[in-house]
Amino acid sequence: MNMVNYKAKHFNFNMSEGVATISLTGADQKNPLTFESYAELRDVFRDIVYCDDIHVVVFGSNAGNFCSGGNVNDIIGPLVKMNMKELLNFTRMTGDVVKSMINCKKPIIASIDGICVGAGAILAMASDIRIATNKAKTAFLFNKVGLAGCDMGACGILPRLIGQGRAAELLYTGRIMTVDEGEAWGFYNKVVSPELLDETVNILAQQIVNGPALGNMMTKTMLAQEWSMSIEQIIESEAQAQAICMQTGDFKRAYEAFIIKQKPKFEGN
Amino acid sequence: MNMVNYKAKHFNFNMSEGVATISLTGADQKNPLTFESYAELRDVFRDIVYCDDIHVVVFGSNAGNFCSGGNVNDIIGPLVKMNMKELLNFTRMTGDVVKSMINCKKPIIASIDGICVGAGAILAMASDIRIATNKAKTAFLFNKVGLAGCDMGACGILPRLIGQGRAAELLYTGRIMTVDEGEAWGFYNKVVSPELLDETVNILAQQIVNGPALGNMMTKTMLAQEWSMSIEQIIESEAQAQAICMQTGDFKRAYEAFIIKQKPKFEGN
Amino acid sequence: MNMVNYKAKHFNFNMSEGVATISLTGADQKNPLTFESYAELRDVFRDIVYCDDIHVVVFGSNAGNFCSGGNVNDIIGPLVKMNMKELLNFTRMTGDVVKSMINCKKPIIASIDGICVGAGAILAMASDIRIATNKAKTAFLFNKVGLAGCDMGACGILPRLIGQGRAAELLYTGRIMTVDEGEAWGFYNKVVSPELLDETVNILAQQIVNGPALGNMMTKTMLAQEWSMSIEQIIESEAQAQAICMQTGDFKRAYEAFIIKQKPKFEGN
Repeated sequence: MNMVNYKAKHFNFNMSEGVATISLTGADQKNPLTFESYAELRDVFRDIVYCDDIHVVVFGSNAGNFCSGGNVNDIIGPLVKMNMKELLNFTRMTGDVVKSMINCKKPIIASIDGICVGAGAILAMASDIRIATNKAKTAFLFNKVGLAGCDMGACGILPRLIGQGRAAELLYTGRIMTVDEGEAWGFYNKVVSPELLDETVNILAQQIVNGPALGNMMTKTMLAQEWSMSIEQIIESEAQAQAICMQTGDFKRAYEAFIIKQKPKFEGN
Repeated sequence: MNMVNYKAKHFNFNMSEGVATISLTGADQKNPLTFESYAELRDVFRDIVYCDDIHVVVFGSNAGNFCSGGNVNDIIGPLVKMNMKELLNFTRMTGDVVKSMINCKKPIIASIDGICVGAGAILAMASDIRIATNKAKTAFLFNKVGLAGCDMGACGILPRLIGQGRAAELLYTGRIMTVDEGEAWGFYNKVVSPELLDETVNILAQQIVNGPALGNMMTKTMLAQEWSMSIEQIIESEAQAQAICMQTGDFKRAYEAFIIKQKPKFEGN
Repeated sequence: MNMVNYKAKHFNFNMSEGVATISLTGADQKNPLTFESYAELRDVFRDIVYCDDIHVVVFGSNAGNFCSGGNVNDIIGPLVKMNMKELLNFTRMTGDVVKSMINCKKPIIASIDGICVGAGAILAMASDIRIATNKAKTAFLFNKVGLAGCDMGACGILPRLIGQGRAAELLYTGRIMTVDEGEAWGFYNKVVSPELLDETVNILAQQIVNGPALGNMMTKTMLAQEWSMSIEQIIESEAQAQAICMQTGDFKRAYEAFIIKQKPKFEGN
């Protein structure tokens, strides 16, 4: 499968040098999610699994903001009128976006500037690596709109990123996590000024693109797969996963390059 | 069920504006636990589940200390004479205090001044949010009294708060965690001076009381429920839990308030 | 079983005052692992389980370095020629080293100076406590050699030490974790200058040796055992484990020493 000519209907999508970049649209409303963009995100991440020309996904910002979450008029308005069957359809669809991101087999770098709240904060959380600017405002604000903090995986996933106690406080208050907190707590892997965001993300993305794609695919897979395993299961699973990677050409290429004191050129197989 | 007139026998208990405040007694011994206070704590937290007039529990300090753990004369003395059946009865009862705190469906804020050691450190650990003073002395000192670090859930829960390596060191040495460590590691959500402790805790408690009670109940539930789930299970569980919350009046109230640019007034249903 | 006269064939091993100290050899290559040293490490840690004269294991550095990982000529060369059956034998053997360390029933302190990369970083990760020098260079560099980050448990264990996001970044890039990162993130429990490393580790090791050996054995056991349990299971498991410890002489000794205001002298039973 090849997505180089994929035309996204409900967000920006482009590909360059092994990197697929997605960013939401609607800059005047700080890039809200809609029913349509949720569904297309789910579908695109499901397709990315099979795209050999995509090695990294960048989930980027647009016009100074990442994402303002579910649109109040387009999403919250209809939701308050839905019956339980319709609500479950919706919450399962949004959950499927997170599942499809975590199962897409390619590392995802969230590139976060400005507003990153509600379902937007979840998209950042569901990424593998988060680079933010010092203008980033991340809030898991579900309780501000009368809901629970357990949205799209937050009560289970956020504690593994920043610790159980910090996650609890953010989810009970819905407050903005400051940039300093986000960096100190490990939510953001790195914080830079807005003008350095793209360059920082690009360098990291290219570094991963130049790495062993099959190995990285397996790293992505196992980071999720081992989530709730026992230590014994973790170690047996990795024995199998790494044995697969040891039969790749990339492992041989790295060895041969080392012998002649050169840098390996990986081919992803 | 209504606990506004509940008279606690073995600790301080009072209610005000949706907040139940508990603090241990015995200030001359820095508020030790006794067989009786353990049992009553277990029972009270089991009752709190059903109390619609309690939205937050504050587990507070008393006369400058939080809790000195199991009383040496009243608890450790009898324990060294017990047979295995009696010991299991005891360790299961103390474990039931932690279970009842985690299952009480209301956020618990520990307000920690001074000594917070042994089973006292566990009560802090089993709370959702911890606000401490710069005089707080928290120690999981079980190995100092010849026991294992695995007391009332510490080997499983503490690592999720501060990381596996830091938890291991504290549990193998029994040493005091410094205030700076506690804050940097995420054990304490916030550290303030002793004179600001009550005010800081009250502001946070009122903020949560003013939030959506049903949503917060679900957050509390799912933070524990998702502990050992796979990511797939986490996301499906949250799809169901949040769909329930989307049928509450509070979700509708938040939407309607937003439309008229006002702050929502939540009613907890 | 007694290991005081154990002569290790493929690494340094010595015992003194309840502490077994292991360090790898091959200082000119910064102490690489070999097929033989992997296998002997696995066997030694399996034997340590039954050695009453070992209360703590120190996994130390040698000539300014901890371990450079699998030897390129001795290990990676042969691996690239192996079939799947042979590869699985290898990855399971290396995984068994981690399993045997985690299951050895004695706290392990890694004493890390200089290079600590690849499988060396895993040996550090599989230890309970990590003391490092400001010269330590830890890298989970598997993707630099064309492999996945999921080696010997890294995708499951590293996130519990430093957080899921930080672990992901290290595993996707293979880069060196700086000393400051390692300390701030909780990978290192403490960082000291090289000349203070031995003394710092020895003081900590002796402190643990002087603690209750049976209690510490149970702490080690439960830190791993509770890894993927639910909170309810964690608490019941600890009720059983601690009840066992409450029937030890060391618990009684601690109580009796307290009564006469002395320090207890533990005997490990």
